[in-house]
Amino acid sequence: MSAGLDAAAPAAYLSLMATHPSAKDLYERHKRLSLHLEGLGFALDLSRLQASEADLKALEPALHRALEQMAALEKGAIANPDEKRMVGHYWLRAPELAPSDDIREAINLACGQLGTFTTSIHNGSLAPERAKAFRHVLLVGIGGSALGPQLVCDALARSGDPMTVHFVDNTDPDGIDRTLASLGGELPATLTVVVSKSGGTKETRNGMLEVSHAYGAQGLTFGRHAAAITQEGSKLDAVAREQLFLERFPMWDWVGGRTSVMSAVGLVPAALQGIDISELLSGGKEMDEATREPAPICNPAALLAAAWYLCGTGQGHKDMVVVPYKDRLQLLSRYLQQLVMESLGKRDDLDGKCVHQGLTVYGNKGSTDQHAYVQQLLDGPDNFFLTLVEVLRDRSGDEPTLEVEKGITSGDFLSGFLHGTRRALTDRGRESLLITIDQVDARRLGAIIALYERAVGLYATMVNVNAYHQPGVESGKRAAAEVLTLQAQILAWLRARPGESFAAEPLAEAIGSDDPESVMRVLRHLAANPHHGIERTLAVQAAPWDAAYAAKT
Amino acid sequence: MSAGLDAAAPAAYLSLMATHPSAKDLYERHKRLSLHLEGLGFALDLSRLQASEADLKALEPALHRALEQMAALEKGAIANPDEKRMVGHYWLRAPELAPSDDIREAINLACGQLGTFTTSIHNGSLAPERAKAFRHVLLVGIGGSALGPQLVCDALARSGDPMTVHFVDNTDPDGIDRTLASLGGELPATLTVVVSKSGGTKETRNGMLEVSHAYGAQGLTFGRHAAAITQEGSKLDAVAREQLFLERFPMWDWVGGRTSVMSAVGLVPAALQGIDISELLSGGKEMDEATREPAPICNPAALLAAAWYLCGTGQGHKDMVVVPYKDRLQLLSRYLQQLVMESLGKRDDLDGKCVHQGLTVYGNKGSTDQHAYVQQLLDGPDNFFLTLVEVLRDRSGDEPTLEVEKGITSGDFLSGFLHGTRRALTDRGRESLLITIDQVDARRLGAIIALYERAVGLYATMVNVNAYHQPGVESGKRAAAEVLTLQAQILAWLRARPGESFAAEPLAEAIGSDDPESVMRVLRHLAANPHHGIERTLAVQAAPWDAAYAAKT
Repeated sequence: MSAGLDAAAPAAYLSLMATHPSAKDLYERHKRLSLHLEGLGFALDLSRLQASEADLKALEPALHRALEQMAALEKGAIANPDEKRMVGHYWLRAPELAPSDDIREAINLACGQLGTFTTSIHNGSLAPERAKAFRHVLLVGIGGSALGPQLVCDALARSGDPMTVHFVDNTDPDGIDRTLASLGGELPATLTVVVSKSGGTKETRNGMLEVSHAYGAQGLTFGRHAAAITQEGSKLDAVAREQLFLERFPMWDWVGGRTSVMSAVGLVPAALQGIDISELLSGGKEMDEATREPAPICNPAALLAAAWYLCGTGQGHKDMVVVPYKDRLQLLSRYLQQLVMESLGKRDDLDGKCVHQGLTVYGNKGSTDQHAYVQQLLDGPDNFFLTLVEVLRDRSGDEPTLEVEKGITSGDFLSGFLHGTRRALTDRGRESLLITIDQVDARRLGAIIALYERAVGLYATMVNVNAYHQPGVESGKRAAAEVLTLQAQILAWLRARPGESFAAEPLAEAIGSDDPESVMRVLRHLAANPHHGIERTLAVQAAPWDAAYAAKT
Repeated sequence: MSAGLDAAAPAAYLSLMATHPSAKDLYERHKRLSLHLEGLGFALDLSRLQASEADLKALEPALHRALEQMAALEKGAIANPDEKRMVGHYWLRAPELAPSDDIREAINLACGQLGTFTTSIHNGSLAPERAKAFRHVLLVGIGGSALGPQLVCDALARSGDPMTVHFVDNTDPDGIDRTLASLGGELPATLTVVVSKSGGTKETRNGMLEVSHAYGAQGLTFGRHAAAITQEGSKLDAVAREQLFLERFPMWDWVGGRTSVMSAVGLVPAALQGIDISELLSGGKEMDEATREPAPICNPAALLAAAWYLCGTGQGHKDMVVVPYKDRLQLLSRYLQQLVMESLGKRDDLDGKCVHQGLTVYGNKGSTDQHAYVQQLLDGPDNFFLTLVEVLRDRSGDEPTLEVEKGITSGDFLSGFLHGTRRALTDRGRESLLITIDQVDARRLGAIIALYERAVGLYATMVNVNAYHQPGVESGKRAAAEVLTLQAQILAWLRARPGESFAAEPLAEAIGSDDPESVMRVLRHLAANPHHGIERTLAVQAAPWDAAYAAKT
């Protein structure tokens, strides 16, 4: 590892943008403010931030504290106080660091279980009911149970993979129909993997029931085409036992959903697709080692957290725009959206003070995004910092590649657009970070995931929030449950009075609801889906809130 | 059309969030602040914004002015002063409104040309060189030449479509390889449609050359599998003539890239996929008619523009998060990212004053996003307003649908999650808009596109910027061209001295560049791609900026 940053360097540099630096000044700044992990083929460059090196230096005590807390967490401290959980995703790639023999054994056991299962699926010894062998994987999961697998499987897909992985990540029946249709006639050769840590996530439960129904409609036994990834004893675990699923993989309370990609959640689909998961784990482990470095300026995760802090003054005042110049990494920003925003977007800090912390993430890929919203990044409000991800290797294979102009390849253009955009942003006083990797492979992807996992943890400590819970989302789920309860009341009332028409307000009053708007919204939705047997009656045709609905006679 | 808003209504309501309204208050507010286009199956609800009705009323003069300017623009006024262009995407769905016979005839001619072409492709009378008929479309385009087609083709895809549409929307060689590989052996049955308004976009040119090379490698003539959509006389037009492309479709200077989805750009791939483009156009036309309504409070586009203005105080202070609860609409936010951010993200206003205007857009789909970043929306910084898109119809077909709990379908859950999230956000003082459509079909999609096109135009007038140019992006392209010129210089220098090693700084000096960092970045990229014949030499192994490179001997 070679670090341009030197703890002893003079700390009195001016902010980048105040100095209108020449290209040579920028190069000197690059040397001082970038970090290369040559062994891993990874580099991080902070030189195009506005912050001065003195600003960075001033953060060192906070970074030291964050690194110390991270060390305690890695040793098994309770890092999620309200859920009283340990946070151990780091152990997944280094079981020897787990704080107990039980945990260590559980990780190793799951790893062995996965190897055996994958081999049996690939060699056809574990075969479906009717088809000769499994050729497709259908993962049913949402949030942390889908975003990691989607990123990994898409980034590392190669033609010739033994299996292709498809996803049901919502409770949209039309979306599920589409995914099932996209399998063509291949459902009998499809292994469905249902992923839910708690085993109680409604979207996933619904997706599983829809998919199970589709197998049934083809005369196939769902359990003989299914595996589950869930906590022991969960509802899903019970279903998997009852229906004799082919396999049940564990989840543990010390792995959070959004950091579960290197547990069975990410590894099962990856291994089935043919990805070398040992490389993914090893990249994660190497980055973990590099990011345990106690000197913040030599630690890429600490530098990344510091960059976020400096860009958004520790309050997320600027959006983090993530643009990898590589199609394979297009889902990175969506993955980071969850990892970063769900971890940092918190009302209260650890002292119970209302702080409304967060850090917004968006982005797709370059140079495509240059033809979409980069116009605004260049000319619009200075409300973001860009993270450019550069991949040095253009395409696989060593054969001569097509020249699109004399001596220039499409990959050279891609590289030129990245550096051109970076320069144009700097010229306009807009901040950017640059991450460079040699190529997109399992090892580098594992390293990038591990880098962001740790950076999020460190940043959370710097701004004093709990990165490992998500208290807000329960309120939406509760409100949704109330809407569904209301729907049941409405259906019962109308069906008991077939042909009798009700507008929303009188109906709300009749069933004792104080929420006529929700009654109206439920009625509209019911009437749009004929199988419920509720229709909008013609009695009143004025404003929609006067519309009346009745159960069919 | 029934508008809850009444121009004569008393204007003195308090801000929503200041009043802690009951569900009944919210329903009354909903009645006053929502607009239903019953004929179109469309509704827009502003009731969960923080703004008061007085705030909205105060915007009326500005909205009136914007509507008047829009009327002038629709009559053919020069709306893009620095490019001296008319802005006529509205005429695409109502040629009778075009300001000249030439334009009217051009639109009608292109429409007829498309009909004939689509029929010939579908019935196999226009067949590829070797395969029996075309079964796939490969669209090569970027930005406005890809985002619209991607949205439309994905939103309206059905199993049983006559053709499937694939995309090359970047100059990433690995990404192009992946797309070509995903065609399986079907390249001989693939029609490539190259889309570039100017005909000079490098990414598209590169994509075309790569794809053409792939046909060539299979002994196929590219022109016999290609069509072009471009301006008459462009570089691409010349290539298409030379290589005897199957067809050339026109683009016109009065259609901007980001509003071109209802020109040949969007219609050709849509028609080939089997979409009823007359419905798409008709939905656009109906929404155009509804949004020409001169009373702002009865005009959905004016209301939408007003909502954006009120949420972000006319300066884009809040991000627009767009979350359709429907998998088919997942690309809507990416489409709107371009339409909104490229149109509004401007440094100078129309008077030449530096204003740094813009409006940030991101989002994916619900309820999936509830398991990703909605935690931050609920608990984090109040730096956004959410646009929820509700689709009343759950799935196609009238047959009974699966119940996932007694009396409840997956679609009911989807609806419950939408309304639950909306309520949870309101409870926390977070703003949201709600758009409701009956179903996702060509007509509603055309209407939504037209709605946003007009809302962007109106908002641009309100904040006094030119919505129809993109002056910033040229700087990135220029800087990219400089990097590629530098690469040519570096290659020439090193190849003239095979085996001689240079580090970045001495090399920069030798070739007369004042930018050693760019030299270093070009060297790293060249060395990572062996076909260039440049290697990192072992002489110096210290910090990366001291690394040296040489041409192979």
